[in-house]
Amino acid sequence: MRTKSEARRQAILDSATVVFRETGFERTSMAQICEHMGCSKATLYSYFESKEALFVEVVLQSTLGEFDALMASMDLQQQDFGAALEGFGRGLLNLLYSPHVQAVRRLVVADVGRAELGRRLYEAGPARGEAVVAEFLRDAMERGTLRRADPRVATRHLTGLLEAEWIDRFLFHVIEELDPASLNETVRRAVEVFLRAYAPEP
Amino acid sequence: MRTKSEARRQAILDSATVVFRETGFERTSMAQICEHMGCSKATLYSYFESKEALFVEVVLQSTLGEFDALMASMDLQQQDFGAALEGFGRGLLNLLYSPHVQAVRRLVVADVGRAELGRRLYEAGPARGEAVVAEFLRDAMERGTLRRADPRVATRHLTGLLEAEWIDRFLFHVIEELDPASLNETVRRAVEVFLRAYAPEP
Repeated sequence: MRTKSEARRQAILDSATVVFRETGFERTSMAQICEHMGCSKATLYSYFESKEALFVEVVLQSTLGEFDALMASMDLQQQDFGAALEGFGRGLLNLLYSPHVQAVRRLVVADVGRAELGRRLYEAGPARGEAVVAEFLRDAMERGTLRRADPRVATRHLTGLLEAEWIDRFLFHVIEELDPASLNETVRRAVEVFLRAYAPEP
Repeated sequence: MRTKSEARRQAILDSATVVFRETGFERTSMAQICEHMGCSKATLYSYFESKEALFVEVVLQSTLGEFDALMASMDLQQQDFGAALEGFGRGLLNLLYSPHVQAVRRLVVADVGRAELGRRLYEAGPARGEAVVAEFLRDAMERGTLRRADPRVATRHLTGLLEAEWIDRFLFHVIEELDPASLNETVRRAVEVFLRAYAPEP
């Protein structure tokens, strides 16, 4: 009955996603999720031990699959290193600024009382992504494409530059989406600045 | 009676500042602020429609003063341009990562339903700060200290680099404060990368 269980688990996650988005983490109850889905509380708790555990799954499921696909699409052997970084940058901003990831970021940031939840999400999300990109940059440093530096710091500088132009306007609700032409220009400028800053020493 | 109204409004802000600091945003009620000030709820609500709106005014008033002091302390004529940028960077991160600015950032990010409030805060906060820093960088470009580029974009790249190392860990509640030594190192690395990226063309 494994397949049936997984289908049920996924249905719970889908319901929870809708309810969390509509109601916010704090005000959502497990009872509301049961009601939305039409299942018993006992069934719900047999899949997820707590609202926090359910929330973490909702967040991770909606973002990790897409992030993995993005990283898998990065071609380390690509001739043009700048083009590879731009491809990563476009993928990252498309992911971060998509409405469902924006919604998840807001939920996490708002949830002030729960340091443990934040830490788990940070480890599974940004920290995990950072480790993958840092390996990519370390490799470029070893090949002499970039100057030697701390690959973790370089990764944060790269993502900081990519996010720099629009993050405040998203966080303050000044804009809700970014048109593809602006996104491409933003990525081109960020990668140009990154490559100048991390160019090999002459 | 305009003067009297403004005096009353300021008195409310002063009372609210005291109560928010003592009790924290979540646990403070409008009733407590009335009690501290000795006014009726009707009077309070005639000046501020909600606790959120009042909190935002309190924070803007306190952070804008600090930001203005920070900008005033930047010495355009300083011999060492890198040292001037590092001074700005330390001041900015100390401001952004102070508990009361963290608190308002969370409030703004979480408050999905109030786009108008977000826009007001963005215009009064980040956009206003950005304009001042962009003028500083434009001046450096005209003197040949930096290469020619869009000063607004350069400003966002600078602040993006300054925030890059810690912003996610603050937003995910992984850390609550940053020790001065780490802050200084972060600023030094960010300014070094910025200066490499925006060095004048040879």
